[in-house]
Amino acid sequence: MSTIGLLGGTGSEGRGLALRFALAGERVIIGSRSRSRADQVAAAVGEQLTACADRILAGTNAEAAAEADLACICLPVDGLEQTLGDLRSSLSGKAVIDVVNPIQRTPNGFDLVTLPRASAAEWIATLLPEADIVSAFKTLSARRLADLARPLQGDDFVCGDREDAKRRVLDLVARMPALRAVDCGPLRNARYVEAATVLLLELNHRHRATTALRLLGLRTDPPH
Amino acid sequence: MSTIGLLGGTGSEGRGLALRFALAGERVIIGSRSRSRADQVAAAVGEQLTACADRILAGTNAEAAAEADLACICLPVDGLEQTLGDLRSSLSGKAVIDVVNPIQRTPNGFDLVTLPRASAAEWIATLLPEADIVSAFKTLSARRLADLARPLQGDDFVCGDREDAKRRVLDLVARMPALRAVDCGPLRNARYVEAATVLLLELNHRHRATTALRLLGLRTDPPH
Repeated sequence: MSTIGLLGGTGSEGRGLALRFALAGERVIIGSRSRSRADQVAAAVGEQLTACADRILAGTNAEAAAEADLACICLPVDGLEQTLGDLRSSLSGKAVIDVVNPIQRTPNGFDLVTLPRASAAEWIATLLPEADIVSAFKTLSARRLADLARPLQGDDFVCGDREDAKRRVLDLVARMPALRAVDCGPLRNARYVEAATVLLLELNHRHRATTALRLLGLRTDPPH
Repeated sequence: MSTIGLLGGTGSEGRGLALRFALAGERVIIGSRSRSRADQVAAAVGEQLTACADRILAGTNAEAAAEADLACICLPVDGLEQTLGDLRSSLSGKAVIDVVNPIQRTPNGFDLVTLPRASAAEWIATLLPEADIVSAFKTLSARRLADLARPLQGDDFVCGDREDAKRRVLDLVARMPALRAVDCGPLRNARYVEAATVLLLELNHRHRATTALRLLGLRTDPPH
């Protein structure tokens, strides 16, 4: 059992991931700038998942980063540099999952936010140079993550430069029913996953749907 | 029956599309800078598809553009500006399919080529301002397009700003067995499709596969 610290874990993405990680057998700490907000959300998530409630904890982002052996960055892009600067030493040497989508709503739909690097993943890697960044869960709908009445769907695209950290995240994804973990190579490939996510949001908007992607043609069969 | 002019149609993508367009009932003109090369390829494609051979013709790019009522740009990114400049008046007022992937091989894999616009699709639209550009077929493997022993697979992502031209391309895609046509909104969304294509090439390379994408969660059922 890992202890996964969800940094910025009180938003819809963080809550959904907390549920899925707890269901996969992990201990989670929902982190927030505000300890009381974290307490509130952890209590609400624990009520959704009473059997795992003792493994759903709360803390400040600093506490979640310090206690975690695996961190998960669910922070908004604004303020990412500041927050991760503060957490850099706590996250040093740890595996860190990046689920950040640098995407903004525009009058016409959705668009990528311009960052100092070609992807949020690569930017986070420069902000946390001593951590092993693995990007994952980017294309999954936050709404679907939080909807326990329905299994997840499609493939999860996992990118990272450190094989041991990436393997750990691939294994975590593979423990989620109906989701297939796909090794997408180095962290730089997260830029293409983030771009593909914009397409999914555009399609969700246009087709009033909650879409996910399934790769066809891989030799590993999709899960049932 | 349309007459589809394949500009730069002698490469593997053009040959595969010529086969699939002919099978879908269209008349195709394989265009090339070199008329003799176009003749050669049209003869070879006609031999693969003898029942449709009378609908598989050859011409220079200028002839293919002039005679086509629907053009398809299969040109390499290098030289695109020059070639389309020469063809601009022939293509004026016509629907034009863009299948260009601005992707290069690098020592480590694949990468997007930097263009004057965020996508090949949007760049082509500036080079052919009087044509109705529709991007399609970007994520489909050229090898799979040319392999008549196997049906195509997955979804085709169609983007365009003119609804009538886009509808025409969506209908063309929908006539190809096992392929689903998905309206992905305006032409600018082609930038995300082109990025997703890099991910597919990376996965093909890493997993020794020929991958395609299937959207899950759309209300339209996939074809069988």
